[in-house]
Amino acid sequence: MKKSLGSKTMKTVVFPTVVMIVCTYDENGKPNAMNACWGGICSSSPASMAVSLRKATYSYHNIVSRKAFTLNIPSSKYIKEADYFGIASGKDTDKFAKTGLTAVKSDLVDAPYIKEFPVAVECVLTHTVELGLHTQFIGEIMDVKVDEEMLIKGDVPDTEKVDPILFSPENMNYYGIGQVLGKAFEIGKML
Amino acid sequence: MKKSLGSKTMKTVVFPTVVMIVCTYDENGKPNAMNACWGGICSSSPASMAVSLRKATYSYHNIVSRKAFTLNIPSSKYIKEADYFGIASGKDTDKFAKTGLTAVKSDLVDAPYIKEFPVAVECVLTHTVELGLHTQFIGEIMDVKVDEEMLIKGDVPDTEKVDPILFSPENMNYYGIGQVLGKAFEIGKML
Repeated sequence: MKKSLGSKTMKTVVFPTVVMIVCTYDENGKPNAMNACWGGICSSSPASMAVSLRKATYSYHNIVSRKAFTLNIPSSKYIKEADYFGIASGKDTDKFAKTGLTAVKSDLVDAPYIKEFPVAVECVLTHTVELGLHTQFIGEIMDVKVDEEMLIKGDVPDTEKVDPILFSPENMNYYGIGQVLGKAFEIGKML
Repeated sequence: MKKSLGSKTMKTVVFPTVVMIVCTYDENGKPNAMNACWGGICSSSPASMAVSLRKATYSYHNIVSRKAFTLNIPSSKYIKEADYFGIASGKDTDKFAKTGLTAVKSDLVDAPYIKEFPVAVECVLTHTVELGLHTQFIGEIMDVKVDEEMLIKGDVPDTEKVDPILFSPENMNYYGIGQVLGKAFEIGKML
């Protein structure tokens, strides 16, 4: 028997999503980093990612003016920094100075990425979708950069080494990645 | 040192995303279910979720004609059924008959949900965004329905009991959820 929990996102939907840090420059060139969990891959060709931000955020205005952003995947050892990026605001804080992390200027898009995090996705803004409280920014992926020591055979990221963090909106917990359960497009053939 | 992996989504981005099954009716009222991993929550108010589908899918046409869909979160014990929903096509298969799962008619939206899966999110189509290979459908959440035995104090879903499946595009693996690493909006205050 199912129970209705109403029309909400937090405390209802079991939708763990990887923690990603949106990095942008403000109009003076100051780099900013923000923890954003509403987003992800939204198209394979052109390869694109989406991230939804409230207008109240500093990052929102940075993307509107710079038309670019990067999405950075932290390893779990950076959980405190990642969470801090979602608590403080770039309006009154230099979050890179506070955390000691390094903003690297992308040579492909007008945004910085985080040197210490294992995966950076560099995006150019292509669509802006007004949704109410949130605005969804969609960016075409210009490149994905991954730390060499995280790659298997120099080619594919090793998930266990990257060790991403998941955010779960129903209980506000961060989780690690669990055990391998099977292979996509294979295990279903057993039916 | 970071290595460039180019502009792709598969085999590059470490972006584990929860496996969700999109359920729809076709023009004859036949229920269909499809495994879709490009999507997630995209706005808090109005509470909304996004899912990106290729025009080649049966579900794409169902959403265009019915203007509604549900997103269903399977427990890991349904991993074979969930993967099968991404392999077979509703064009030539009755996937509910094949899997033995039950399509329940939603009383809120013009789409079915899966009785046996623990979480169902009922959405009415509000935005259609053309992105290239994929079309992104955004739906306003009309209700979230969760199996009563999965709720803590009758209120919030218990993630461990729901036991969702994650799909990881870089290595095509399914993962379980891992250990709790900390609390969001709290652990970062230690900095």
